[in-house]
Amino acid sequence: MTLCDIGNTHLHFYQEGRVWACVPQNLENYKEALQGGVFYISVSPKNTEHLLEFCPSATDLAPKMQLISKYEGLGVDRIAACLGLGGKSGVVIDAGSAITIDIMENNTHLGGVILPGFESYCHAYKSISPALDMPLNLRVDLEGLPNATADALGYGVLQSVLLTLKHLIGERKSYFTGGDGKFLGNFFSNGIYDGLLVFKGMRTALEA
Amino acid sequence: MTLCDIGNTHLHFYQEGRVWACVPQNLENYKEALQGGVFYISVSPKNTEHLLEFCPSATDLAPKMQLISKYEGLGVDRIAACLGLGGKSGVVIDAGSAITIDIMENNTHLGGVILPGFESYCHAYKSISPALDMPLNLRVDLEGLPNATADALGYGVLQSVLLTLKHLIGERKSYFTGGDGKFLGNFFSNGIYDGLLVFKGMRTALEA
Repeated sequence: MTLCDIGNTHLHFYQEGRVWACVPQNLENYKEALQGGVFYISVSPKNTEHLLEFCPSATDLAPKMQLISKYEGLGVDRIAACLGLGGKSGVVIDAGSAITIDIMENNTHLGGVILPGFESYCHAYKSISPALDMPLNLRVDLEGLPNATADALGYGVLQSVLLTLKHLIGERKSYFTGGDGKFLGNFFSNGIYDGLLVFKGMRTALEA
Repeated sequence: MTLCDIGNTHLHFYQEGRVWACVPQNLENYKEALQGGVFYISVSPKNTEHLLEFCPSATDLAPKMQLISKYEGLGVDRIAACLGLGGKSGVVIDAGSAITIDIMENNTHLGGVILPGFESYCHAYKSISPALDMPLNLRVDLEGLPNATADALGYGVLQSVLLTLKHLIGERKSYFTGGDGKFLGNFFSNGIYDGLLVFKGMRTALEA
């Protein structure tokens, strides 16, 4: 059995403890690996079509992804990550193309926040001026004041994201996932990184 | 005498107490108004060319914009805004296509930070997913937790920008300028809005 989390840029797979990600253009390379049952969730109709091309029998898990929440339009990947807590309370941070922050308490989703992902910040800066089209320095010293453009950009992004996370996490436990989850989690002494949070949530829904 | 602050999207003019902004395409409409001496600063070589087309005698004030700073590549508009403090210490926030934050103490620039402007955040979200292509709700309640996408985006942007500003301002005085400067300044009880900060700095340099 294979689980697939279809995002806007990548398709993420889980199969018997093995995980991998690929862009839709490379799906053909995994055709054979996807011959068993495939269960997916998707936030990208376009990329879902790509999967169904190679895997016509793949099953959409969305109808089974149930979360108590007042949030209108909560993405199914965020629902999955929240379910991945397995009933624990805390803040779920999924740091990928966007950075989503969702607060869970007593099996209930209390609300959530969306920040751009690090790469999207780069796009934003680039769109402002060619002078800001450079890699962010995310290793910038947050104790000092930046005195170069790459540091000024890196400080802006990292400090603003971290302060927002600290504000929302407060005394809560925090669970990080996604491509930049490990990096961000390292800034929080009680931060827990779990790269499988979304897949755990999918499995919970599948077994329910 | 006319002062002109050439940005990446607009050209901002100051003439005898009157201020106006225009996109390069509309410069022709102001041809007559620009017949006196024009002094400019620019962060956009492309838009400078447009001005010089209508105003070949316009003078670049950049060589006169002197600020004590270790910052490599500090934009001339940021230098002007810092000089606009007229020697006062404090934090200068210019909220336009980017939000720049510069710290001045005893006539010395200590460093600075760059965040995307509100519109650039919208571009960033849009580039992530069509589901995030919507106006931010910047009137979102920052005391509660968002339960809709427009609120989640607005909260992410506004809270992250405000927390970064609060962190950098600390006990310092803060001076806001730029298109979104008035809006942002309202969140700070000691925040002072001065839409003419850049022009004041240009005049200081011109008179020096």
